[in-house]
Amino acid sequence: MAAAARLAARGRPLSRPNPAVGCLVVRDGIVVGRGWTRPGGRPHAEAVALAEAGAAARGATVYVTLEPCAHRSDRGPACSDLIVEARPARVVIGQRDPDPRTCGRGIERLTEAGIAVAARACPVSRDSLAGYLARAERGRPHVTLKLATSLDGAIATAAGESRWITGPAARAHVHSRRAMADAILVGGGTWRADAPRLDVRLPGLEPRSPRRLVLSRTIADETVETLPAPEAIAGLEAVQYLYVEGGAQTAAAFLAADLVDRIELYRAPIVIGGGAPAIGDIGLASLAQAHGRWHLAERRQLGSDTFEAYRRQAQDQPRDGDKR
Amino acid sequence: MAAAARLAARGRPLSRPNPAVGCLVVRDGIVVGRGWTRPGGRPHAEAVALAEAGAAARGATVYVTLEPCAHRSDRGPACSDLIVEARPARVVIGQRDPDPRTCGRGIERLTEAGIAVAARACPVSRDSLAGYLARAERGRPHVTLKLATSLDGAIATAAGESRWITGPAARAHVHSRRAMADAILVGGGTWRADAPRLDVRLPGLEPRSPRRLVLSRTIADETVETLPAPEAIAGLEAVQYLYVEGGAQTAAAFLAADLVDRIELYRAPIVIGGGAPAIGDIGLASLAQAHGRWHLAERRQLGSDTFEAYRRQAQDQPRDGDKR
Repeated sequence: MAAAARLAARGRPLSRPNPAVGCLVVRDGIVVGRGWTRPGGRPHAEAVALAEAGAAARGATVYVTLEPCAHRSDRGPACSDLIVEARPARVVIGQRDPDPRTCGRGIERLTEAGIAVAARACPVSRDSLAGYLARAERGRPHVTLKLATSLDGAIATAAGESRWITGPAARAHVHSRRAMADAILVGGGTWRADAPRLDVRLPGLEPRSPRRLVLSRTIADETVETLPAPEAIAGLEAVQYLYVEGGAQTAAAFLAADLVDRIELYRAPIVIGGGAPAIGDIGLASLAQAHGRWHLAERRQLGSDTFEAYRRQAQDQPRDGDKR
Repeated sequence: MAAAARLAARGRPLSRPNPAVGCLVVRDGIVVGRGWTRPGGRPHAEAVALAEAGAAARGATVYVTLEPCAHRSDRGPACSDLIVEARPARVVIGQRDPDPRTCGRGIERLTEAGIAVAARACPVSRDSLAGYLARAERGRPHVTLKLATSLDGAIATAAGESRWITGPAARAHVHSRRAMADAILVGGGTWRADAPRLDVRLPGLEPRSPRRLVLSRTIADETVETLPAPEAIAGLEAVQYLYVEGGAQTAAAFLAADLVDRIELYRAPIVIGGGAPAIGDIGLASLAQAHGRWHLAERRQLGSDTFEAYRRQAQDQPRDGDKR
């Protein structure tokens, strides 16, 4: 399923408005078909993988990160029907589809056709569908907050100098993350001060530059869309993944509204001392309130900088014991 | 030599006023003697290791982190004489001794006696002697600045709450680091606000609680020594390792005076937002000035917190290329 999730990542974000799904067809331990959702959302991952597998799909195992769809559309047949036709012995599903048009009906159709189905709640599938699931379950995009700081948590010197805190490898990584987003957002202050381009400057990925948003009630600039408040992201229907790049007041506004799912932190091995802090006031009443909300999901070295991703602890999960 | 340096660490800090040295005697691939400087500085590491090796030292290789001393004292014989008597075939030395009473003379005596000597500039030896070398070469203790912050670099909430940002594992680690220091220092503000005990609360290590210092011109408190300015650490003759625990103004004063050799950073996976920053103004004129001064020497996970040690880039070493 991890391999299928990696395939799914290739579909992100161009699969919009559809979820980026990954699919593998495995026969006698050999991968005979691979697919991921194509740009614009069609064909679906299953259709691509089954077409590659051809007759070899008969008796095989199909791994798919999301429950195959059960609804026919004029853009293509339902994937559950395609799978029934291909006659695999078994289908392993990483995540049930919350879409009311499918929601269990995909699994039903396979089972009724005599195909063994294992529907799992698989964390890597869930992760790879984070944007789609945020929309379906919480009615808003998945939000990543990006920060680039010194060791002492500053995003600029006291005089406002912020270029550059991190090195070229970290900055290229930021561009690769932008390319995975449907939209980028900065605050009005950052927009006015830095006039950031917010585009993807990686060879070959320039066309991936996402939609640009500014959090502001006052800016009137034809080159950019404005949002009056963090909560307004609910209205961004086509946006599964939103990438928030600061500054400190915007970061604080999203955190205070509990609208951040992932923090991506780039840290340079420098000390600024008395610089501009990364995050403004979020209305924290006590330290106890701060604990148990984030856990480290990923860490890697980018040149001399460190990249860390922190994932929001799911509200229904127990928090870290040792901090309370 | 790495093994000898690990032995040396057992002597720290109780070897004071002597350097904490480690010594291994190896014969036919087998360790036949191990020694480290004993509390109070005597016996020396070589004497301990050679006593353990006995007759097996003849023809063996001696690894020692620091050049064996050449001066006899009423506290014991010179180690170079002891080694000559023991007749090893070879002595590998990790660091020349800057002490004018030895400084090359230890090596000379061994060579004159027909023993092969390999004197190296070995980074692990240098590291394990950092406090001794700082005193000998720069006339001051080795200074470690400890910080415990949130992801956004805060050491307290805006209201001043700082207990606790990090978890029990990180706090125990701090106590183990205190036990390795000759003295601990905090700022006058921290002393007044928190009345910190600055002791070692680890079972069995309570007697290791180091000397306590406060950076202040105004505090008159019989229970603690005061220092008027960071530069005054030069006068702390018996202190090889100084552990500075903050607060932000004290951290800034030591950094601004370029008197920090190592930063030990504990980071909790929490966001405070608008909290008290870890480091005050250090008089940084531009970001370019901040780069290339620190590099990551160690990182480990302590419960859900991360411990990182940053070592000051030696002034005569080239700085990281990608940041300039």
